[in-house]
Amino acid sequence: MSECAVLERKVHLVGAGPGDPDLLTVKALRLIERADVVVFDRLVGAGVLDLVPAGARRVPVGKTGGRPGVSQERINRLLVELAVPGRRVVRLKGGDPFVFGRGGEEALHLWRHGVAVEVVPGITAALGCAAAAMIPLTHRGVATGVRFVTGHCRAGWWLDLDWEGLADPGTTLVFYMGTAHLGEIAARLIAAGLSWATPAAAVAEGTTPRQRVVRAPLGELAATVGAATLDSPVLFVVGPVVEALHDGRAAPEMLPVRALLAQAGHA
Amino acid sequence: MSECAVLERKVHLVGAGPGDPDLLTVKALRLIERADVVVFDRLVGAGVLDLVPAGARRVPVGKTGGRPGVSQERINRLLVELAVPGRRVVRLKGGDPFVFGRGGEEALHLWRHGVAVEVVPGITAALGCAAAAMIPLTHRGVATGVRFVTGHCRAGWWLDLDWEGLADPGTTLVFYMGTAHLGEIAARLIAAGLSWATPAAAVAEGTTPRQRVVRAPLGELAATVGAATLDSPVLFVVGPVVEALHDGRAAPEMLPVRALLAQAGHA
Repeated sequence: MSECAVLERKVHLVGAGPGDPDLLTVKALRLIERADVVVFDRLVGAGVLDLVPAGARRVPVGKTGGRPGVSQERINRLLVELAVPGRRVVRLKGGDPFVFGRGGEEALHLWRHGVAVEVVPGITAALGCAAAAMIPLTHRGVATGVRFVTGHCRAGWWLDLDWEGLADPGTTLVFYMGTAHLGEIAARLIAAGLSWATPAAAVAEGTTPRQRVVRAPLGELAATVGAATLDSPVLFVVGPVVEALHDGRAAPEMLPVRALLAQAGHA
Repeated sequence: MSECAVLERKVHLVGAGPGDPDLLTVKALRLIERADVVVFDRLVGAGVLDLVPAGARRVPVGKTGGRPGVSQERINRLLVELAVPGRRVVRLKGGDPFVFGRGGEEALHLWRHGVAVEVVPGITAALGCAAAAMIPLTHRGVATGVRFVTGHCRAGWWLDLDWEGLADPGTTLVFYMGTAHLGEIAARLIAAGLSWATPAAAVAEGTTPRQRVVRAPLGELAATVGAATLDSPVLFVVGPVVEALHDGRAAPEMLPVRALLAQAGHA
């Protein structure tokens, strides 16, 4: 690295992936291990934060234990303040910085204040949870595309969604959101034409050792999820792909809970 | 690892990411470096293949230089044959195995033949290209969701797409496909209601040193891309997010070509 590069003002917007530190990119790992300052969200996994050097400054900006998080405007200002020449600043975001991560807003603010930005992509939750729960997001003859939808923008957001467009049985839907409005979402998708029986799943704490996967027909998903009392973050997948590998799920190594229950029954 | 685990029949379906080997996950890198056999597609980057150990067997199954690739059925059979107990078999797929990667088909076939499967997610091309081209896939007030669409399934596929549903100005569209049908796709999106002036971009060889980004209004994208003679793989992004960081693009470090031209002009 040239002396010039070391002395510029720069922030790396880095995707921290879905939780498992092994799902960081090689580039993200290298940046974290060499960071002087790490600014991180609530959704960044504990295992990822363990990789931050002991001497580096850690700046949490997410909501914790009922306290509100730092506002986006404050985060933007903070990143500009931290970006002094030669200091290695890593802004860590759960998943990918450009998928529901507001990375664009931070990049724009930094640029406008003369700070260089590099974005390092991350495994967004949909990809991490799909792999861990063995749900292909596309599958020949079942789904030719996939769509990521969020619900975290503001109250009443779902009223504005194009439900007719969403209710396409050939496109897998992935909702990045909490469990609060799941029943309303399912009801609107069914009203817009999706079958009540469309396979659906909730993946809680995906890719971590605490991962839980709940599967149910779309019409029953809210009740099933409610009974399961899942911990956040939770991702919802709607579409026939949820059952596409159904035959394969009989393999015991893919179903630890069911396999353990079966073993217990036979013991 | 227990002796039992070493001696099982297992295939790792591993996402190789968009091209840059630094965008492999840590887990993918570890599996590649320890592999006994690596079965790989045409879209796996050369830099990634350089990481395969010298003593490992390399099995290319993609199309090369006009020769057709190995059929999916043959790949499925090959993976089962290769999966002998204790052999570390890595099936490397460009991008993510579960996004247009047919990973689901391979997993199902392997399971049905008694072979265990683990899927390691990868940075799908949309995420890699978005970060490298500084196009946020979602952006507050501009796009609340993103949709990945492919066109590689069969001839005439685009006739079946739900164009009315796709033509949602609040959802970013990413097309994973060649340049051949770009004109028809743009025309249909415009006929279905998207503005002719909707910002759009083509990203060729994204995340590699040869990356090229071409931006144009949707109505002019096909002509602009045709004049640019881009090398594959090419990804198309359609939506206002393409211009969301327009202000920031004035930063010279984000625009190496323009900066070099400017420097040349001042020299």
